[in-house]
Amino acid sequence: MKSVSELRQDIVSKDWVVVATGRGKRPHAFLDKKREKFLQPKSSCPFESFRPEALYTYPSVAGRENMWQVQVVKNKFPAFSQRGVCAVFHHTGPYQWTDGVGHHEVVISRDHRRSIAEMSTAHVEGILRAYQERYVVLQNKDCVEYVSIFHNHGSKAGASIAHPHSQIIAIPVIPPDVARSLIGSKKYFAQNSTCAHCVMIRHERRGKSRVVYENEQFISFAPFASRTAFELRIYPKLHRSRFEHSTASEIASLAATLRTSLAKLFYGLHNPDYNFFLHTTPAKAEKDFSHYHWHFEILPKTAVWAGFEIGTGIEISTIAPEQAAAFLRKIKTQ
Amino acid sequence: MKSVSELRQDIVSKDWVVVATGRGKRPHAFLDKKREKFLQPKSSCPFESFRPEALYTYPSVAGRENMWQVQVVKNKFPAFSQRGVCAVFHHTGPYQWTDGVGHHEVVISRDHRRSIAEMSTAHVEGILRAYQERYVVLQNKDCVEYVSIFHNHGSKAGASIAHPHSQIIAIPVIPPDVARSLIGSKKYFAQNSTCAHCVMIRHERRGKSRVVYENEQFISFAPFASRTAFELRIYPKLHRSRFEHSTASEIASLAATLRTSLAKLFYGLHNPDYNFFLHTTPAKAEKDFSHYHWHFEILPKTAVWAGFEIGTGIEISTIAPEQAAAFLRKIKTQ
Repeated sequence: MKSVSELRQDIVSKDWVVVATGRGKRPHAFLDKKREKFLQPKSSCPFESFRPEALYTYPSVAGRENMWQVQVVKNKFPAFSQRGVCAVFHHTGPYQWTDGVGHHEVVISRDHRRSIAEMSTAHVEGILRAYQERYVVLQNKDCVEYVSIFHNHGSKAGASIAHPHSQIIAIPVIPPDVARSLIGSKKYFAQNSTCAHCVMIRHERRGKSRVVYENEQFISFAPFASRTAFELRIYPKLHRSRFEHSTASEIASLAATLRTSLAKLFYGLHNPDYNFFLHTTPAKAEKDFSHYHWHFEILPKTAVWAGFEIGTGIEISTIAPEQAAAFLRKIKTQ
Repeated sequence: MKSVSELRQDIVSKDWVVVATGRGKRPHAFLDKKREKFLQPKSSCPFESFRPEALYTYPSVAGRENMWQVQVVKNKFPAFSQRGVCAVFHHTGPYQWTDGVGHHEVVISRDHRRSIAEMSTAHVEGILRAYQERYVVLQNKDCVEYVSIFHNHGSKAGASIAHPHSQIIAIPVIPPDVARSLIGSKKYFAQNSTCAHCVMIRHERRGKSRVVYENEQFISFAPFASRTAFELRIYPKLHRSRFEHSTASEIASLAATLRTSLAKLFYGLHNPDYNFFLHTTPAKAEKDFSHYHWHFEILPKTAVWAGFEIGTGIEISTIAPEQAAAFLRKIKTQ
């Protein structure tokens, strides 16, 4: 069985890219310049009803599946797929590649119209529990090196289906951005005998100018080096390396922080498109990544990446994070 | 005089971002979700007429400025600006930052409607000469560490003005993506006693499956690890570290390669939006970057960066480069 994709490595940067082979489009598919229809009516929404084959349901009461609030299903058009064998690294001429062996799941919340910003904190908690439960299952599968959890809101953020949903992709390599973050964090730890993220959190809590929301266990702030206007990061205030080890109380506290952060963007900026994703340690529990501090990053689509950003890797934020945070602090979220 | 921007460094990844302070938008500017009007009529186009203050004109004949085909002017809304002093690196708490000291110029070609794909090769040559001339001037300015040359075509690629133009930004740091490319190229050279790019070029010329165009001195191909569908890279076939050392004959040959590559995208994909940029060695001539091989990268905007790409740094190309190249090879460009 042919894999749906290949992971190919750039021989200079060593970065990986995914080349869709199985679900690859034909050249003529790129000709149609019309925007794909985004606002599916509820009646024709593929995520509207319960799937008996769901990998996870919340709440989970046997025989009461019609009560579902969150379900996790396999992605029908996966970027990575399972083939029963681990990824084998091949060489073709000077190049290295491997089959796109992995898992691609979709986390669906029940309400067709209500985005996370508009949900109850309890419902957001259900979504985060689904992340955690599926993370644990996927991290223990053979050949999985990293589990990426992310959410696309709006067509400009790459969502192709309007119904609120997140995605979980388990892959056989450690992604370049995560690797850089791990290396940076390790280096900082070696030099300063403390976690770089903890230092940042302490500094932000003291200064307060970039803090947007804080509760007992979590903090949300606009980072000093924001990649985009209104970027927000959510951290557990205590040093925590692994998202999957979060306690029920931490998940509840995170739910309030995530919901409030997204609601501030939703009401403050009139429902902007955004992406958020989790950065946590690689999947395999036996390795030591105790220097790392897991967190969520929320990046509103407030600008288009142009030649400067793509060519240099330097992003341009058109508002200072201090000003963005001051604006968001004032936004009521209820 | 306050700088228009700050460069701020992420303490974990060590990546730099630009935070616009001088030209920063106010929070309410992000509320307006309407697309900015893109198709300016020729009559109200700010790039339509010759600017007596132009930094460079081609062809340059005193008193015959009305003959201009290409002019280079200062960007009216610069991301980096000159303040007469070099960037000083400051520390605020755990963070490092510096003023956005640099230069930001715009390369304007005369014809309002004709993009590079539709120009004569001679006209493209004029644009490339402007790149080279301004590169040499800017690389020798105090405090300039890197000169980034790029072109945004279409609103989805971040162009805010429809009139064809390129941009040149000279900055006081080596950008993270360029640094990674330099380090990767140096490491490859140390391990293999040869240039990674030369190896790639040799392999592509032998296999031909990803080659789109080739002339005596340059080659254009879809890279094995394409970052986006229909990505193209243009390389001088001989090992060349520094773009600014190109001979007149190389510039002419590059012009034919760039024009043909863009024309294949233009006619094949019906005028897609795209970015292209130059990757060359850092500005200061005294350092040894002889392992590096300068090139242009052309990235059509065939997809939106979503949570997976932003969170992992792994891009997804929805067509195999071999298939993209086979399609583009057949496209007539005249």
